[in-house]
Amino acid sequence: MATDQAEHPDAYESLTAHVRRMTNVGNAAGVLNWDQQVMMPEGGTPARSQQTAALSALHHELLTDDELADYLETLDGKDLDGDRAAVVREVRREHERATRVDGDLVEEISETTSNALPTWEQAKAEDDWDEFAPTLERIVELKREYATQIDPDRDPYEVLFEEYEPYLGIDTAERILERLREELVPLIDDIEASDADLADPFEGTYPEADQEELVRAALDTLGYDWDRGRLDTAAHPFSMGTQFDARVTTRFKPDDPLDALGSTIHEFGHATYTLGLPQDEYGTPLGQSRDLSVHESQSRLWENHVGRSRPFWDLFGPTVNDHLGTDVSPRDLYEAANQIYPDNRIRVEADELTYHLHIILRFEIERDLVRGDLEVDEIPQVWNDKMDEYLGVRPDTDAEGCLQDIHWTHGNFGYFPTYSLGSVLAAQLFAAAEDDLGNLDEDIRNGEFDDLHDWLTEHVHRHGCRYTTDDLIEEATGEALTADYFVDYARGKFGDLYGL
Amino acid sequence: MATDQAEHPDAYESLTAHVRRMTNVGNAAGVLNWDQQVMMPEGGTPARSQQTAALSALHHELLTDDELADYLETLDGKDLDGDRAAVVREVRREHERATRVDGDLVEEISETTSNALPTWEQAKAEDDWDEFAPTLERIVELKREYATQIDPDRDPYEVLFEEYEPYLGIDTAERILERLREELVPLIDDIEASDADLADPFEGTYPEADQEELVRAALDTLGYDWDRGRLDTAAHPFSMGTQFDARVTTRFKPDDPLDALGSTIHEFGHATYTLGLPQDEYGTPLGQSRDLSVHESQSRLWENHVGRSRPFWDLFGPTVNDHLGTDVSPRDLYEAANQIYPDNRIRVEADELTYHLHIILRFEIERDLVRGDLEVDEIPQVWNDKMDEYLGVRPDTDAEGCLQDIHWTHGNFGYFPTYSLGSVLAAQLFAAAEDDLGNLDEDIRNGEFDDLHDWLTEHVHRHGCRYTTDDLIEEATGEALTADYFVDYARGKFGDLYGL
Repeated sequence: MATDQAEHPDAYESLTAHVRRMTNVGNAAGVLNWDQQVMMPEGGTPARSQQTAALSALHHELLTDDELADYLETLDGKDLDGDRAAVVREVRREHERATRVDGDLVEEISETTSNALPTWEQAKAEDDWDEFAPTLERIVELKREYATQIDPDRDPYEVLFEEYEPYLGIDTAERILERLREELVPLIDDIEASDADLADPFEGTYPEADQEELVRAALDTLGYDWDRGRLDTAAHPFSMGTQFDARVTTRFKPDDPLDALGSTIHEFGHATYTLGLPQDEYGTPLGQSRDLSVHESQSRLWENHVGRSRPFWDLFGPTVNDHLGTDVSPRDLYEAANQIYPDNRIRVEADELTYHLHIILRFEIERDLVRGDLEVDEIPQVWNDKMDEYLGVRPDTDAEGCLQDIHWTHGNFGYFPTYSLGSVLAAQLFAAAEDDLGNLDEDIRNGEFDDLHDWLTEHVHRHGCRYTTDDLIEEATGEALTADYFVDYARGKFGDLYGL
Repeated sequence: MATDQAEHPDAYESLTAHVRRMTNVGNAAGVLNWDQQVMMPEGGTPARSQQTAALSALHHELLTDDELADYLETLDGKDLDGDRAAVVREVRREHERATRVDGDLVEEISETTSNALPTWEQAKAEDDWDEFAPTLERIVELKREYATQIDPDRDPYEVLFEEYEPYLGIDTAERILERLREELVPLIDDIEASDADLADPFEGTYPEADQEELVRAALDTLGYDWDRGRLDTAAHPFSMGTQFDARVTTRFKPDDPLDALGSTIHEFGHATYTLGLPQDEYGTPLGQSRDLSVHESQSRLWENHVGRSRPFWDLFGPTVNDHLGTDVSPRDLYEAANQIYPDNRIRVEADELTYHLHIILRFEIERDLVRGDLEVDEIPQVWNDKMDEYLGVRPDTDAEGCLQDIHWTHGNFGYFPTYSLGSVLAAQLFAAAEDDLGNLDEDIRNGEFDDLHDWLTEHVHRHGCRYTTDDLIEEATGEALTADYFVDYARGKFGDLYGL
């Protein structure tokens, strides 16, 4: 072994030192981004853009560095133990993707998408798809070229999808999304046709200070570690951080206190994953979370399976009434948190079920677009037809239709599916946890979340990127990713609520 | 010219691009530091230390980079215009200092001073100089070696002083500090002997929320640009930022509302310098502030020449009474803000006059220490004797004597003098501004600060590092740095207040 590695006797140690530096640069950029969204005065943008660009360029240089290539070459084919092999697998994958793409193309994508932002904003404000269309066409071209440079022999959409979810396979994703569509369209039809009248107990407005106290109480209840986190407001809630410091942001709607509550619990789920990563592996893939579907599974598990469950409202209802000065029963809170609105045209305001049809629609359109089976011009028509088909509504305007999301402006084709895959995985993980721990209703009703936290840490968080995503799911739940649990859960909960 | 630069035809452009990247890495580290002191939860320290260390190492590598050396070599002796010559001068100076020092020594200093921190904290808590002495001896040795590597032919203290103030010369510093000592010791003696009884109008405690409103009102009054700044609290107030985003921090003492007010105005002065730097030069030395004495001159000018002046209290007194629920006259506020306490043993709590004797004492001790004219063991005795000689008091313990400051623990020999040089320069600049603008009392009394801001921007801020510090002072005031104006100002104000 020592002779094998003569070129770099400490190749593994050198590689991890290099990767730690790279991770730290990336995490520094994360702090700058948090600051920009949460703290920075408006005037700071020009300098911040340059600071972020400098860190991003340095991160890219570290990732594509010749020294790193040498370490990887030295380690190629070596008999490394499981953890070391995992580190090398992850670094190699990222390094190879990054080196295959031409620097000029990366820069052109970055410039084009930056310039696309104001164009998209204007087009949305003026409800004018044609204004945005040429820009989107160019972005699709560039991202197709990007995918081709990474792998000319595979479907470009598949390659782009792997940017966000490398280990599940596009076939699995397609199969699961198709299953969801087949199950959810009729379920939502039934809900719409039902006579059930779910409670809608909030009237008037609720001061931000009261709502903030309420979401802080929710974070206390769920066991957020304030020594390693904080709560702030942001225009678009997100979470950011490391296993030492994972922060949550939220926002408040005066007339809808459950909105901030749900969104905060969602971000708490993300943060609790980050906080569950092993501290002594900070800086290497073993101390980093898996990709977007797994991250989203953690946020959805806490948001939906805990935060929208009946026992949660038994537990937390009195706290809601205390802070908001209301007198709403747990049952009514449970109903209010689980309203289904098929007529809602906006993804980010969608409910737990119709959300997935918003995603499926986007997935089908962007997949066909990248594969060349759909033209940009056709999007408004296809979008509206699919809204009609899946949810029985047509957007009145493109602004509240195909112009509503920012993702395509950023060129993030392949990102949308991970939202739904995350929900599917959340249901599967929650079921596996109940298999091990017994029915969790009593625990939730009693505010005892330690067992669930421990189970998630044991089976998901502590592994970082030790396993590929499919292996991680198999290890944690005993089977491959499947929509069965989500479908059962959805049918059970909403069947009960809507008397189906 | 084109043939001269054949090796690097765009050497200047390449150099500035390189330097911009380096500046952005440094500024990113500044944001991380602000976050750590203001926002970060306690548990975040281990990851943050690594992030900061990674950025600091990258900054050092960029500064000592061979490519940068090539650009500098190509530009050596070239006929550059004034601004370009200034950029090259500043970059060359920093690059040469950094490359002369051995990487191992930098690392050893960094480790030694990091480890020194808990030792110093313990020694201070236990009032035990002997516990700290061996550590300090080692730090002195290392910093002496550091100075020798930079320039073996010059006094090591002079070389260290130039780390913080490269262009004033240690002789000037010594002469000015000596003059201050000669003038201030008898002036403080006279004050102590006087019968004057200055007003001390604040009793009880004042809620933090009221004090915060008050300091925000002060920032409004002085013209702080909230679109490019913000105010927060920190254990040790500081300011941080760029010409696009320069933030202020403060802290509140329940029983002393003038403390936060003075400290906030001080940090405002720093921020207003940063905000006055040219935006289109962001990232190069032309968009960066001069060194510590000039920065401190801006904070002291606003803190003392504006914020502790009689007309300021005429203007701002009613606001104080509004926020604190008090009924204090402008004259009494003026007196309260200008109390002199020769018996105060703590530098950071010292008043506008005795402060300088605290500095002079430290300067004399650290200079002799680095030059080898004083042993670490002798410091407590010398410290206490000098306190007695300059201020007529002896510290009761080393904890409130020679162990009170953190600077030596960091190895920052040469830093202390810049505080007093800043005050001296503040007086000189304020006098020059009055020479140009006429007596500023009426402006201050009317809350009209635009002329003063404009004057400072015109003569100091907008130049960035275009001029060396001595040239900047000469350009702005028509003469070299002199203590005359400070001495006149001190004699005038305190002579009047104490009836001398």
